[in-house]
Amino acid sequence: MNAKLQWLRNKMSSLDMQGLIINNPINIRYLTNIDAEGILLLTRKENIYITDSRYIEQVHSTVTLFDEIIVYDAHDVSKDDYENFFMFCENVGFEEHYISYAKYKEYIRKFKINNFVETEYIIEKQRMIKDEEELKNLEKACEITDNCFKYILSYIKPGMTEKQIANEIEEYYKTRTDGLAFETIVLSGENTSKPHGIPSNRKIQKKDIITIDMGCKVNGYCSDMTRTFFVGSVPEEIKPVYDLVLKNQIQTNEQYKDGANTRLLTKMVENDFKLYGYDLIHSLGHGVGMEIHEAPYVSYQSDTQLKENMVVTNEPGIYIPGKFGVRIEDTVQITKFGCISLTKSEKNYIII
Amino acid sequence: MNAKLQWLRNKMSSLDMQGLIINNPINIRYLTNIDAEGILLLTRKENIYITDSRYIEQVHSTVTLFDEIIVYDAHDVSKDDYENFFMFCENVGFEEHYISYAKYKEYIRKFKINNFVETEYIIEKQRMIKDEEELKNLEKACEITDNCFKYILSYIKPGMTEKQIANEIEEYYKTRTDGLAFETIVLSGENTSKPHGIPSNRKIQKKDIITIDMGCKVNGYCSDMTRTFFVGSVPEEIKPVYDLVLKNQIQTNEQYKDGANTRLLTKMVENDFKLYGYDLIHSLGHGVGMEIHEAPYVSYQSDTQLKENMVVTNEPGIYIPGKFGVRIEDTVQITKFGCISLTKSEKNYIII
Repeated sequence: MNAKLQWLRNKMSSLDMQGLIINNPINIRYLTNIDAEGILLLTRKENIYITDSRYIEQVHSTVTLFDEIIVYDAHDVSKDDYENFFMFCENVGFEEHYISYAKYKEYIRKFKINNFVETEYIIEKQRMIKDEEELKNLEKACEITDNCFKYILSYIKPGMTEKQIANEIEEYYKTRTDGLAFETIVLSGENTSKPHGIPSNRKIQKKDIITIDMGCKVNGYCSDMTRTFFVGSVPEEIKPVYDLVLKNQIQTNEQYKDGANTRLLTKMVENDFKLYGYDLIHSLGHGVGMEIHEAPYVSYQSDTQLKENMVVTNEPGIYIPGKFGVRIEDTVQITKFGCISLTKSEKNYIII
Repeated sequence: MNAKLQWLRNKMSSLDMQGLIINNPINIRYLTNIDAEGILLLTRKENIYITDSRYIEQVHSTVTLFDEIIVYDAHDVSKDDYENFFMFCENVGFEEHYISYAKYKEYIRKFKINNFVETEYIIEKQRMIKDEEELKNLEKACEITDNCFKYILSYIKPGMTEKQIANEIEEYYKTRTDGLAFETIVLSGENTSKPHGIPSNRKIQKKDIITIDMGCKVNGYCSDMTRTFFVGSVPEEIKPVYDLVLKNQIQTNEQYKDGANTRLLTKMVENDFKLYGYDLIHSLGHGVGMEIHEAPYVSYQSDTQLKENMVVTNEPGIYIPGKFGVRIEDTVQITKFGCISLTKSEKNYIII
């Protein structure tokens, strides 16, 4: 059996769980490489993937004998089959954060489950720690993002629209990767004050501030980087804000390491911003992997510890409504004694 | 109050529901035009939207006084506020197909809800019937899709890859619409046997079969069209399959009207395919609106009636594993006595 399924079966044993239903397609892809619509059942003895006729061919071409996964077309699974899958299972786990309340009720009926137990993100927690192959994909995605940013700095000229720049980034990624990790954010002028704004038809001015938040996917793994930069020169009123954001981004990088507490890390930035009259209005960071936002979350709400080989963002930002915003973000890998920035683009004032 | 919220409040009254929590962002956008992350609460007297600081500015610029929506930053909502929202409500509705089991448990605690009741897709059911403005957007999205298809027929040349063609379609849409309604499917040769295949680097041959499934979004509303066509000539072995699919697509169009039963419609196509030794391995159609797949579903599992001003696809297909596949799909509007095809591209043999 493949190593990830084997790990999960050991975990189930330790939790006294004889069966498990997995619905989250990202978790299924993580465990099996299957990228389709369907559900994965871990019964006492078998790993079963139930899909429909649209995906059967594709799924068969993905799984190997080594995976030990039996693939069914939902059309061929009878009412009795469903009732038999977990027949001798006392406890069957389910993804309580993923399946809907309606699905929960349906499964209890359909699978005749004795004791349906919450699994508290067991797979997501395992996904936080990246193995060698995952790290290679993340590094590659970040490297291409650095290259793309370098290219886009040379591409941008006053008169171009935010949308046009976002399209050019998408084109760059498309020819080199599996595509975007998320919709590219390109904002300019007063639009930069919206942390999650959408690229508009606003044209780049001769003296302008621009924020780009960008990332791509390589073999299913994401990158995430933001830079705020300037056309012509850095306006005096922006300099102190930029410096404050950068200072905190660098300090956070210095604090990111195995054992660091996510709430404390966030609190430190928040406090420093408050000293100067600003707020940290979003998280300081988030895990990056098969999803662009995944555990662990680095925020005030999240009280957890960073661990070796987690990959997270470090992205402080300050936004002044109607005026401008500054965010600087890297994707970094946590190590025993520090961290390695996987995105490596310039962070001091960038002027084009 | 805006008409859609007013409709929903009337519906709630008739269901003896004093409060309602809406989580599905598409339903929220349908009711309020808000396109952000947050939840919509309909309490006894107020419409409340709770979002976070990332979206506050954008939400404020969307809602009008006429909507009568109070917008909160989640940061400013206290534990007491949550407990007070539904204080005098006997029954509070929730979207049981949308919220997770974990969220369901959390809400009961957080909102101190007496009786949390399932709403059985009330908003989705209303969304099935399109109003005049929605129809205008759907027509526009379909018209641009026809134009794009015409353009792409002139663009395709042997030697181009499936991916390259998909990119060109995306580019076309990007400059004219809000973007793709779904990832464009471009398949050629034996790849056409996978109904939901992903464009690959396979190059178009001099004698080839090509299937393109494409759609865009206009003001949030989708289009969906598929054509299977040929390079050079139509191979003799494919002709009978193409003719059979086309015959059934035309017959279905003739049957699509107010009152028609979705299961019977599907059964008719299925039976005709079986006569010739083929299967209908996917649905015959699905609703199209703010989502590319939405209610009503036209399939064997769905026993419902088409109604005036529903917009659905009509997409029979036959797939022969390892050899080829044929699908012909239009987006059509149901009327009292028939239907109007919103996508109007040629359906007889297309040879490029």
